[in-house]
Amino acid sequence: MAQAQTNRSVGVVTPQVYHHGAPLHLSAGGRLASFDLVFETYGSLNENRSNAILICHALSGNHHAAGYHDQDDAKPGWWDSCVGPGKPIDTDRFFVVSLNNLGGCHGSTGPTSENPDTGKPYGPTFPTVTVQDWVRSQALLADHLGINRFAAVVGGSLGGMQAMQWAIDQPDRLHSAVLIACAARLTAQNIAFNEIARQAISSDPSFHGGDYSQLGENPELGLMLARMIGHVTYLSDDGMRQKFGRELQSGGFEPGHDVQFQVESYLHHQGRSFSQRFDANTYILMTRALDYFDPAREHEDDLARALSAANCKFCVVSFSTDWRFSTERSKEIVDALVSARKNVASAIIESQHGHDSFLLEIPRYFDVLRSYLDRIFEEVCGEA
Amino acid sequence: MAQAQTNRSVGVVTPQVYHHGAPLHLSAGGRLASFDLVFETYGSLNENRSNAILICHALSGNHHAAGYHDQDDAKPGWWDSCVGPGKPIDTDRFFVVSLNNLGGCHGSTGPTSENPDTGKPYGPTFPTVTVQDWVRSQALLADHLGINRFAAVVGGSLGGMQAMQWAIDQPDRLHSAVLIACAARLTAQNIAFNEIARQAISSDPSFHGGDYSQLGENPELGLMLARMIGHVTYLSDDGMRQKFGRELQSGGFEPGHDVQFQVESYLHHQGRSFSQRFDANTYILMTRALDYFDPAREHEDDLARALSAANCKFCVVSFSTDWRFSTERSKEIVDALVSARKNVASAIIESQHGHDSFLLEIPRYFDVLRSYLDRIFEEVCGEA
Repeated sequence: MAQAQTNRSVGVVTPQVYHHGAPLHLSAGGRLASFDLVFETYGSLNENRSNAILICHALSGNHHAAGYHDQDDAKPGWWDSCVGPGKPIDTDRFFVVSLNNLGGCHGSTGPTSENPDTGKPYGPTFPTVTVQDWVRSQALLADHLGINRFAAVVGGSLGGMQAMQWAIDQPDRLHSAVLIACAARLTAQNIAFNEIARQAISSDPSFHGGDYSQLGENPELGLMLARMIGHVTYLSDDGMRQKFGRELQSGGFEPGHDVQFQVESYLHHQGRSFSQRFDANTYILMTRALDYFDPAREHEDDLARALSAANCKFCVVSFSTDWRFSTERSKEIVDALVSARKNVASAIIESQHGHDSFLLEIPRYFDVLRSYLDRIFEEVCGEA
Repeated sequence: MAQAQTNRSVGVVTPQVYHHGAPLHLSAGGRLASFDLVFETYGSLNENRSNAILICHALSGNHHAAGYHDQDDAKPGWWDSCVGPGKPIDTDRFFVVSLNNLGGCHGSTGPTSENPDTGKPYGPTFPTVTVQDWVRSQALLADHLGINRFAAVVGGSLGGMQAMQWAIDQPDRLHSAVLIACAARLTAQNIAFNEIARQAISSDPSFHGGDYSQLGENPELGLMLARMIGHVTYLSDDGMRQKFGRELQSGGFEPGHDVQFQVESYLHHQGRSFSQRFDANTYILMTRALDYFDPAREHEDDLARALSAANCKFCVVSFSTDWRFSTERSKEIVDALVSARKNVASAIIESQHGHDSFLLEIPRYFDVLRSYLDRIFEEVCGEA
């Protein structure tokens, strides 16, 4: 492949590992004797350690948000368009931390890791983790890095839920929370799509109740289906029409031809490639964390009360054609924040790309992020 | 179970079989040496045979639209709320014909039928059928019943596509076409959901390339997944919120409990029950017919030109929260009909029940159908 384009890029980055040697008691009752978090950092921490931004990843994300792991990498990290020198999350100003969450499959302790008690991979015995546990483990990572207070905790989708949980659970440790294309809890429809994805995985005969890796197998078809379902729900109907229409990939409508629409082969490709790089138990664990997230639950379904503990500023961004985490869901968050008398900025971005918009370089979206974070920078680092 | 409620019902009905002894050449190039269509009729054909209504079924429907097969039946036919004495499709006035389509699995010739050439079930070798083939076979059934011209051809979803194809292919054989919750062609998103359902079925190891029945197997898990996917897309987000919210079916959010949301067990139940009563090859065949339907294709994507052959009146009905066949899609049909200078009535019905609305007893929807068909009755049978 062509050499990595390091122009306006953070360049080549090396993942680091934070090892936490003490036990972690999880909110659903489980316990990890110790754990690792793999993470990357971009930019430099300033002297008074006030310019740090934490990026929380979504369902299938990981720590590699920006830059390249090697000069010859074909592709940069998953949010490279947004994170780098002069980009909305500007590494010339901010020190950016991006990690793989607990339970992940990209280097942090998760189902594919060895359980020290048994010497075998955790597999399906990996304990349930929730968004609250992620926030707690991320705070431990911040301790390790000497960051007492983040200038911003930023995330899209499931990442936005983590940013919201940070505001609630660690009110003194962040100056602002940026919640992008997220919701205060999933709708029944969302839970339904997640459950179908889990069902697709667990009914794959190679899943073996989650013990596939010990048997040298991988529930590829189930993971492929799960990803295909997810993928369709991340795109908008209009966006898919523009991208694929009813164009044929092969065959024709003449007698005897096998018709295949482009959208079909696209989904096959996406699903197949995902099934090679993602762990099935992790997928189940991450979707469960999504389903369970509901900070208002402990406050009689009153989100404003749940958010009353927060002590930071908020920026809430949603996208016009996102039907998995619709603008309505963001409006609920904004309304609750207003009702809880918090400082909140919000924007609805016109985009044809559905939920996926949060990963794309959309000028107005990036302008909103840039100007919001510029202000945050002045507030935490300005020489006023 | 309690005795069947025959009040305002067509009562107990007995399915009949029409055997077509001559070959049928199919539009995609296949051929059936002969075929059977199973059908039911409700009401009486009048003397000049002008009061017949044809009901075309949707993806998973069948011939049993109204009444009971037995006094002890727990449930009536799938559209019993709409078809019967004094109901919108009033069997006191109309003679109603309802059939199971070619390729179906409820008695008409389909993949589960014996191939006369081999003495074995067709299975995956059943030829591709299209909406055009359905219309042709339905016209042959009409010949058999001595019906030269239907007062109305009525259908929802895939059934509406058949009604549209009737208007194009058999312009002199229907007085009106009632298109409910349908589209002139599927969007890429719709094709994507269908493809995921097919993929779920074909990747079930019990599918055996479609030869499951000969091996005494059934791809139940695949069919279950396919139905779960379909089901979520037939409901609206709001409707699901009202029906399920985030209510728990079992477990709790306390540590150590396994959480199951009501929507999950509901979908499992729906999927499992469907997998017991529906044939996998038929599901694939029916979704393919949906995908291929596109009458404008042969007219340079000009739907108005495709519809210019029609010679009947139209009634087009859609539902506000239907996102699988949205009101936009119905509007495209209405616009094309107007542009082709056809007589068209249309209504958008407010409903929270998504695509499923077309099967439900919604007062304004039923009022629209009733008053439209009253007028049709006067036109074809009135003593003016």
